[in-house]
Parts: sequence; structure tokens; C-alpha cells
Amino acid sequence: MTFDRHDPEGSIARAAKACSNWGRWGEDDVLGTLNFLDGAKRREGAALVRRGASFSLSQRFDMDGPQKGWRRRTNPVHTMLDTGTDAALGLQGFPHGLGGADDVIAMPLQCSTQWDGLGHIFDHGKAWNGRPAEQVVTSDGDQITGIEHMAPHVAGRAVLLDIGRTAGEDGELPDGFAITEEHLTVAADAHGVSVGRGDIVLVRTGQLTRVRREGWGDYAGGAAPGLSFTTASWLHGSEIAAIATDTWGFEVRPNEFDHAFQPLHQVAIPHIGLFIGELWDADVLASACAADGRYDFFLTAAPLPITGAVGSPVNPIAVR
Amino acid sequence: MTFDRHDPEGSIARAAKACSNWGRWGEDDVLGTLNFLDGAKRREGAALVRRGASFSLSQRFDMDGPQKGWRRRTNPVHTMLDTGTDAALGLQGFPHGLGGADDVIAMPLQCSTQWDGLGHIFDHGKAWNGRPAEQVVTSDGDQITGIEHMAPHVAGRAVLLDIGRTAGEDGELPDGFAITEEHLTVAADAHGVSVGRGDIVLVRTGQLTRVRREGWGDYAGGAAPGLSFTTASWLHGSEIAAIATDTWGFEVRPNEFDHAFQPLHQVAIPHIGLFIGELWDADVLASACAADGRYDFFLTAAPLPITGAVGSPVNPIAVR
Amino acid sequence: MTFDRHDPEGSIARAAKACSNWGRWGEDDVLGTLNFLDGAKRREGAALVRRGASFSLSQRFDMDGPQKGWRRRTNPVHTMLDTGTDAALGLQGFPHGLGGADDVIAMPLQCSTQWDGLGHIFDHGKAWNGRPAEQVVTSDGDQITGIEHMAPHVAGRAVLLDIGRTAGEDGELPDGFAITEEHLTVAADAHGVSVGRGDIVLVRTGQLTRVRREGWGDYAGGAAPGLSFTTASWLHGSEIAAIATDTWGFEVRPNEFDHAFQPLHQVAIPHIGLFIGELWDADVLASACAADGRYDFFLTAAPLPITGAVGSPVNPIAVR
Amino acid sequence: MTFDRHDPEGSIARAAKACSNWGRWGEDDVLGTLNFLDGAKRREGAALVRRGASFSLSQRFDMDGPQKGWRRRTNPVHTMLDTGTDAALGLQGFPHGLGGADDVIAMPLQCSTQWDGLGHIFDHGKAWNGRPAEQVVTSDGDQITGIEHMAPHVAGRAVLLDIGRTAGEDGELPDGFAITEEHLTVAADAHGVSVGRGDIVLVRTGQLTRVRREGWGDYAGGAAPGLSFTTASWLHGSEIAAIATDTWGFEVRPNEFDHAFQPLHQVAIPHIGLFIGELWDADVLASACAADGRYDFFLTAAPLPITGAVGSPVNPIAVR
Repeated sequence: MTFDRHDPEGSIARAAKACSNWGRWGEDDVLGTLNFLDGAKRREGAALVRRGASFSLSQRFDMDGPQKGWRRRTNPVHTMLDTGTDAALGLQGFPHGLGGADDVIAMPLQCSTQWDGLGHIFDHGKAWNGRPAEQVVTSDGDQITGIEHMAPHVAGRAVLLDIGRTAGEDGELPDGFAITEEHLTVAADAHGVSVGRGDIVLVRTGQLTRVRREGWGDYAGGAAPGLSFTTASWLHGSEIAAIATDTWGFEVRPNEFDHAFQPLHQVAIPHIGLFIGELWDADVLASACAADGRYDFFLTAAPLPITGAVGSPVNPIAVR
Repeated sequence: MTFDRHDPEGSIARAAKACSNWGRWGEDDVLGTLNFLDGAKRREGAALVRRGASFSLSQRFDMDGPQKGWRRRTNPVHTMLDTGTDAALGLQGFPHGLGGADDVIAMPLQCSTQWDGLGHIFDHGKAWNGRPAEQVVTSDGDQITGIEHMAPHVAGRAVLLDIGRTAGEDGELPDGFAITEEHLTVAADAHGVSVGRGDIVLVRTGQLTRVRREGWGDYAGGAAPGLSFTTASWLHGSEIAAIATDTWGFEVRPNEFDHAFQPLHQVAIPHIGLFIGELWDADVLASACAADGRYDFFLTAAPLPITGAVGSPVNPIAVR
Repeated sequence: MTFDRHDPEGSIARAAKACSNWGRWGEDDVLGTLNFLDGAKRREGAALVRRGASFSLSQRFDMDGPQKGWRRRTNPVHTMLDTGTDAALGLQGFPHGLGGADDVIAMPLQCSTQWDGLGHIFDHGKAWNGRPAEQVVTSDGDQITGIEHMAPHVAGRAVLLDIGRTAGEDGELPDGFAITEEHLTVAADAHGVSVGRGDIVLVRTGQLTRVRREGWGDYAGGAAPGLSFTTASWLHGSEIAAIATDTWGFEVRPNEFDHAFQPLHQVAIPHIGLFIGELWDADVLASACAADGRYDFFLTAAPLPITGAVGSPVNPIAVR
Repeated sequence: MTFDRHDPEGSIARAAKACSNWGRWGEDDVLGTLNFLDGAKRREGAALVRRGASFSLSQRFDMDGPQKGWRRRTNPVHTMLDTGTDAALGLQGFPHGLGGADDVIAMPLQCSTQWDGLGHIFDHGKAWNGRPAEQVVTSDGDQITGIEHMAPHVAGRAVLLDIGRTAGEDGELPDGFAITEEHLTVAADAHGVSVGRGDIVLVRTGQLTRVRREGWGDYAGGAAPGLSFTTASWLHGSEIAAIATDTWGFEVRPNEFDHAFQPLHQVAIPHIGLFIGELWDADVLASACAADGRYDFFLTAAPLPITGAVGSPVNPIAVR
């Protein structure tokens, strides 16, 4: 897949045509590439549980996250309805010595570790499977492909491709580094794993390791390593069920065109029907994989079934 | 475990003393009964994946939920930051035909399918492991046992006890029905499953089936079937890692004392250190279990690691 | 103004044509009937301050309000970021004995006492002054007539028309009572006040008095007294600057057509350009007016200038 | 009033003792210095309305505000429940061509132009009038002095002291500039106005003018001009009803002690019982005052009566 950096619109159109899955699973499809993830793949994943060690791939949800207010995206605001201090001072009014704490949250659904739903991105007014965007997402939410449809499906075999380790220095890719199909293939070979139909792929760039050390700075949305626009054909042809990175925006930032914004999303979500995860934390898992050389595992990454949502926070759990 | 319905405070004190796990895992423990859930148990769980079928045990998060404003608990309010209608009308200002939808949510962390964290309930000002409540949960959240500590752990073998089917009529227990240890034991025998150390137990009462048919009415917090106060000793002695029900409040409502509020919580959370799930949806899974007679499965129920939260929404995934 | 209760659409069209102010203040107008409120009117209002007594016309903002979740409208959820209990226990970390309390709110902008902005209602896709609705209000808010434009203007002479007292029993109109132009005129005569260009009119029905005694029940949106559809011509011809009621929906509920929803809004906001206040509390003020027989006063009712909002909570202040 | 910059705690204690109003209006008082604002003062204020020109002293509430997440304070997040784009596309489902837009907000109550309530600040665990902080503000909010008590009162005579113009260069004080009693007195003399019992004082520093030109930078909470700690005795002795500035923090930043945080607040709110406004926008009003040399006017600044709140957003309206 080549592209013309002066012509994002034409490049996207060509990639969209080459990679389209529209109609592949029928007119009414709401699952996109999750159709590739079947019972056999879940059994294959479960068979990878050898030690029984489990890993959370989620960042913490708090005010230290990457959001800076861009497009009204803030970090999550968590407040208490009841506290232990009130309870300790006998101010709660419950009988027989009962005390309680309770809490609320206000947050963008994509403020931290998350899944993009199929209604998240449109190409020239078309959503996944060719549907008109206005018939899919109104201010009442996604009427057709809401994240709730994804709820039971995301459990299966997953593969870590640690590009930070295989192509970076000290385990980290620099900002602006574009990950190509070759980087992905070389990493899979180096790790001794196959990637194919129905797999969930986790790409570690190492940016989060750096952020943890140096802070988010002016994020969200600044420079970062990420997938090259050219990987569109691999994302399509590999028939993976979903893919996630440890970065804010999945694809390389700045994007590879002169003037563009997230062009790979414009192909991957509405045309391939691909589920994309962002801001995942692969660091602890990656160390464990490096230690024993096993890069595939059982992954459950269940979004909250918020009716009509176009994304969801998620705490992905790897068991190996 | 017996109790005096005129003396909740004394009954709770006796149960607390009999069931205490304080100090069992050291002074600094933040995991409570999740300490029982180890790698061996996860391997045992993974071995239960035979068909590779996956089930979401979460209700949907939307305005149709059970909350009615009691103690400032509302149903989740989900709003859009960007929509497909705006995109279709060319009003978003992105380049090369890109369009997007994005969303936010404001919700109590215990508005729907959820985990109670260890900081959720106190007994006479004491939190889990004997800590003073005021040193645990301030208005900044749970400083010690926040739900984020639970993040990687909840994946393992789980067992469904379908009391609605074994003790109810047409699969449903009536409101006010108190589930005893005997009901639990009889159900396990009927289902042909064992329940023991490190297991996660899912109790189905069938109330949600009824609610789905008849609506929530004046909920949250009204009459419901649920666990009897007398099960405290079983919850402690069985050494289970966690337990969840398909009801708002886990224990039977109205509670079994003349004047009381959630007395079993007051024993289970601060003294046993037990993780309690509420408002889970066991119906589809229960049908599958009934169909082939297998009542144990691999369960992943990963809370969002919201720093300092005393509860979390969750989409539990059963794979079998 | 007559209407055909079987033909809301035709009736609305006729009223809209008869009452249109489109173009009256130029193509770029964002103030509608607030154009009628000038310096002379403010001086006239200020001259009504005789005792110097001030009255809040706002209901309290809390969970006891009328909202029940309809169209995602909840009562306001107010939570604390810091508390006095934390401060008293020395848990805040400030120097030299400083302690603090702080708070946040999540609320629909029209959950309680409020102004409707000009972007709140459309007629067949047309907003105030004939603008296409899609060019006015996107998911980024009202791009043209946002409530912020109203910010400095709402201070002037206001008149209370206490229809509850002049046409009701014991000061209250029954639910479903349609207030006509005659009721308004009779009340003004009885009160000895004139109503004309640039005035702000407050109509008291007494429903809130009843609600305060009996509770909101199944509100929001149920039966209530309110303005008849036939008052459209009076709302237009009187050249008032704004009008408010002590009810949820301004106009009579159920509406006067067989099948309709808030038809008078559809004329008043997009065609007349009229600012409508709802859920105001006129009770204390009404008692003072009844006591000394003076029904006009100085009113300031300043919306929060939330950029792009189509409504705003407000605490209106009457001084007399 | 002098102070020792190495001893904030001792300095605060001395100022508190010298300036205390505890008990002045009885044990049950919830109004503090608003007790000074009476009907005579409102009549005096109303008499200042000569041209009938009105001015909003509120900044806009949107994502461009000063908040950066410190202590979970974000800028307001305003989202739409319904939009004109949905209406224009016929997607709302209302009858007879009705369309609507509606919205919600989530915001800290002190995110922009606001009043501090009497429960906002404590001194060594004591709130206004000597009450124990824990009996005043729990996680249920301010049980005694909630902002709702302020609702009808804040309308009266106000005075602008434009220290930016009288003591600054080009109308702006530099960051870190401490405004003393002398600056206040000189300004009042220069403006030809008196300041006394029951007046509301608005101090313009000009910082907001600078911020509007240069952006908020790393705010909230950085360097700014503001009142000197030494003005405590003037704030007390002048018997003003309330005071507001055009800055984030009212008092000079950095504070005048080696290690301190908002020491003047610690005297003014709990001991004087003074209402403090912050982030007000005095610029347009100040130009009008400068143009005709009249610096007093009628001010209404009505907080939203959010039950139990310790602060409130406000749109103050000056009429002159």
C-alpha cells in the first residue's frame, strides 16, 4: 500500500477501496472484524493459559491522564457521594454502626484505555458497512453499531508485537516513528508467533514507558510513534479481529501526509470494520513475555455496554 | 450462623467476630478474598473453555436502569461530543472527508452491573483489615484499597448457582426470599459443581428476569430476593474469592431484622474482605448452563482501575 | 387566535405566520424580543424599588426537583471535592491550619428554574429568524444564538400576573387549565398594572404551591396549568421582552390538540423570538405583591453565559 | 495590620482575632456580611440607575477557561442532548414539525466567575461563626451555610475600584502585585466614591485583560495581582457586604508568606464571614465608568441556589 503525501483524500480512497469489508457479513452486520473471532479461537486462547498469571493492560483512570481539554476531552473526574471521614464522625445516619462510601464519575469514554466503536469514525459521511453516518450516530448515540453489541465478544487469543523492543532503542520508538508491515512481520518472527484470522493484536511502541518517566506534556494528540498509513492492507489482509496500541492515537503522529488527521482511522474503522484500542498499557505484560519468550496469551477486553456509545473505557486482562 | 431479628447490632458483632479475616494476609493487605484466587485457579478456569462460547454478564448502561435518585444515584447519562448527523452535514471541519463521533458519560460507579470495592462499607468506623475508615476513604477517594488494586486479579474459575431454578418457581425467586446456605449447597449438588477456595460465585435469583418483564418500578432499593444474613459463615468458610448476584443489593430485601440496612454487607466487606458484585445479568449464561448441565466456566470481571474508587462498573465475561 | 384541535400542524403554521418577527431586527439578530428591553425600561424598573426588598424566584437545585430521567434529564447531581469532615480530621494537607471545601455539579441546563434560549426549539427545521436549524445547533452547541448573548440584557421592569389568585381557587389553577389572553388581561386589571413593550412577565399558576405540598409525583412533563395556544397573538402583539411561569412546560399540559407536543413553543421561540422561563418560583413574591397591591418590580434574571448553550439555570431576583 | 512572613500561622491568628465577626448576628447566622446589605442600601443602589445600561460581569463558561485539572477542577464540559442537525434531518420523532435542542453541563462550581460560600474555607477546623467544620460540610454538602441561603440577598449598591488604572501601567497590575488598603483608598478618592457598610466592592486588577490577550498559560493558581494579607482589617472595618476581583484567587499570588496558601481567605471567610467573588470580568464596565467618571452602580449577583453548595457560578449584572 503506497500513498501520496500531498493527496490524503485520494490515498484514503484507494486504500478504502482495496480494503473494504462492506457487505462481507451481510447488510445488518454490527460486529465488523469481530466476526473473525470464533469459539475455536477462544479455545486456542484458553489453551495458552499455562502459569495462570494475569495482567491488567489498563492505565489508571484519574486526573494524571493525557487529556488536556481538546474537543472537550478531559481526564476523568471522580468524586465521592459518601466518605469514610463522614462515617468515622458518625454523620451518615445509617443504623447499627453501618458506614458507607460511594462515588460517581464524569468522563469522556475515550479519555484513557479504551476501545473505539464502529460508529467512531466516518469516511465522507459513511459509517461501517456503508451506512449513512446520520442514520448511525445522532445525539441519542449510535443507533445501530453501539458499543453494547461488542459486549460479549472480545475474549480470545491475542499476540503482543513489541515493536519498541524489536525496532526501538532501549525498548522505545521515538515520536513520529511510523510502524510498517515489515516492522510487524519482523517482530512476529522475532517473537516466534503467528498472527492471523481472529487474533487480537497488541502493538507496544514504548511511548507510554517514556510518558510515565517524563510526563504527558502537552498531550493529548501530540507527536507519537504509531502505525503507518501503509499498514491498512495488512490490517485488512491479516483478518485480525482487533488491534490496540499503547498510544493516544493508534497511528503515527504527526500523520504521514502534509495536511491530514488520522487518515488510517478513516480506512480502518468505516471500511475494514476494525476495532481499535488506544492508550493500553503493555509494559508489565511485555516484560513477562520477554522473560519467557511467549508472546501469545488469552485476552479478555470487555467494553462497558453503554447503550449507543461509540467507544468505551476498558480494563483488558491478559492471562498466560 | 443464627441471629436475633430485634438485635442487628449484636448479631452483626457476633458474625463479624466469627468471620473475621483481619490480619490473615498481613497488615498491608489490599486484596482481601482475592488472595484466594491464584494461578492454579486460573488454569483450572481456563480448562473449562470447551465450546469457546462467551457471555456478557452485564446489564446495559443507560437511562432504563434501576436508579431513581436515592442518595444521588442516577442512571448513567451518556451524551455525544460529536455525531454522525454533524458529520453528514459537513459541519465538523476535519480534512479529507474524515468524520467522527465521540461521547462522554456521567454516572455513579454503582449505577448498574458493578463490583463493590473494599472501601465501600464500614463497621463502626472500621474498614477492611481493621483500618480506621477516615484513613481509608476521604473526599479524595479510597487512599488504600481503591478499586485499582483489583485491576489484574479477577480472572478465574467461576460457578453459577441458579437458585431461581432450583428453589424458585418458573426460574424466579419471589421478592423477600432469603437464600440460605442450604439453598446454595442444594443448588451446587443439583448442578453437579463444587464451590471452594478461590472460586467466584454467581448467584442467580431470577429477579432480573422479572424486572425485564415488568419494569424496575420504584427501584433502586426495594424488595428483592437475596442472600440471608445467615450465609455470612458460608461466605467466610467457603473461602470463595468473590460473589455476585443479579440483584441491586446482594442480600435479601427487606433485610431480615426489624430495623436494619444491609447488615450482611457490614460483615462481608469490612470483616471477610469479600468482593461483592451486584446487578449482574446471569440469564443468557444460565440458559446455556441449563442446556448442557455445566455450571462452571472461566470468568473475567475486570473493574475499571479508577484511582481511589470504592466500586466500579464492570462487564463480566464468562467463557465456556 | 383560534385553532383546530385536530390539526396542530396547520394551526401552528397559521399562528407562526401571524406572529413572525423574522427579520424585524435584521438578519444577524441574536436577541429576539430582548430587543424590546432598553435603557428606558431599566430606568422604569429601577424606579419601582421602593422598600428595597429582594426576592429569589428560583427553586433549589437538588435531587428533589421534577426530573425523572425523561430524555436524559435528571435532577442536578452535586458532589464534593473536599469536605469539612476531611478538614476537621486534618487530612487535607494545606499549611497553617487552612481547610477547604469545594464542589462540582452535573446537570441538565433545564433541570430546574431556567431560561430557554433561542436555539431551544425549531419549526420544521427552522430556528429563530428563519435560520436553518443545522446551522444553528450542532453537537458543539448553538453556534449563533447561544445563551451567552443574553448575558447582560435581562434586567428591567417586570410584572407579576397571579392567575392562580385571580382565576383559581385558593390561589391555584388546576392541572390542564389553559390560561387565555382574557385571563391575562383580567389579572393585569385586577392587579392595577399595565403590560407592554419591553416588560418581563411572570405568570403564577400556583402549580408549584401544590407540588410543594404534594410532591412532584411522576413529573417531569405531566399535567399542569399553563398558557393556551391561543395566547400566541398576545405574546407577539404585547411586545413583551420575555415571559416565565412557575411550571415545567410554560404552556398548558396536556396540550390542547389531540396529538401534539408543546405547540406554543413552536410558535413562540422560533417565530416570535421570545425568551421563555420555566420552573420559576413566584410564591413568596406573590404574597408580597398581594399584601401591598403592587405587582410590578425590578427584575434581574441573568443566565450563566455558557458558550453555545440553548438554555441556562437562573436565579431571578426581584427587587421592589 | 502587619504580618510576619515567616509565621503565617501566627499572623493569621492575630488577624482572625482582630477581625472576628463571630456571634455578631447571633448563633444561627448563615449570612455573614450580607447582614450589612439592607433595603436602604438596595434603594440607594437602584437610584444609581441613570442611563439604564446593563453589563454582565461574567466570563464565558467554556473550555477556554483557567482550569487545568488542579484538585480535579476542570473547565466546564457542556454537551448536547439534542441538536439542530438531528432536527434538520428529521431524526427526533416529535410531531407536527417540532424540533428541539437541549443540553447538560458538568463543572466545578468554582470553575469560572463565582461566589465563594461561607462553607468554602475553614481555619483550624472552624467554619464561619465558630462552627466545627465537620458539622458544616460533609460529603452531602454544606448542611448549614449552603449557598442557597445567599439566594435572594445579593442586590444592592456596588463600587468599582479600578486599581489597574489607578496603580498600574496601561490599566494592568503586574503579577505578584499586592493591593493594600492605601491602594483601595486612593482609588476610591480618585474615582470620587465612598465605600462603606453594605456596599459590594469590585476590585479590577487588569489581570484578566492581560490573560485575554496572552492566554491563561499554566493557570489555574499561578502568579497574579491581588489583595494583600494586610487588607484584612479593612475588609472587616469597612463593613462591606461582599467583594470580588477579576482574578482566580482574590488575594495576591504568590502569597506574601514564605510558605502559605491563601492566608487571607482563612481570615476573611471563616472569621469575617465575608463573601468573596473571583474570576469576575470588570473590563467593559470599567471602560464605561472611566468614560463618565461614575464608579458606583446597582449590582445583582445571584448565585444558583444549589442546596448545600460551598460556591456557585454567577453572572453578575451591573446596571447604571
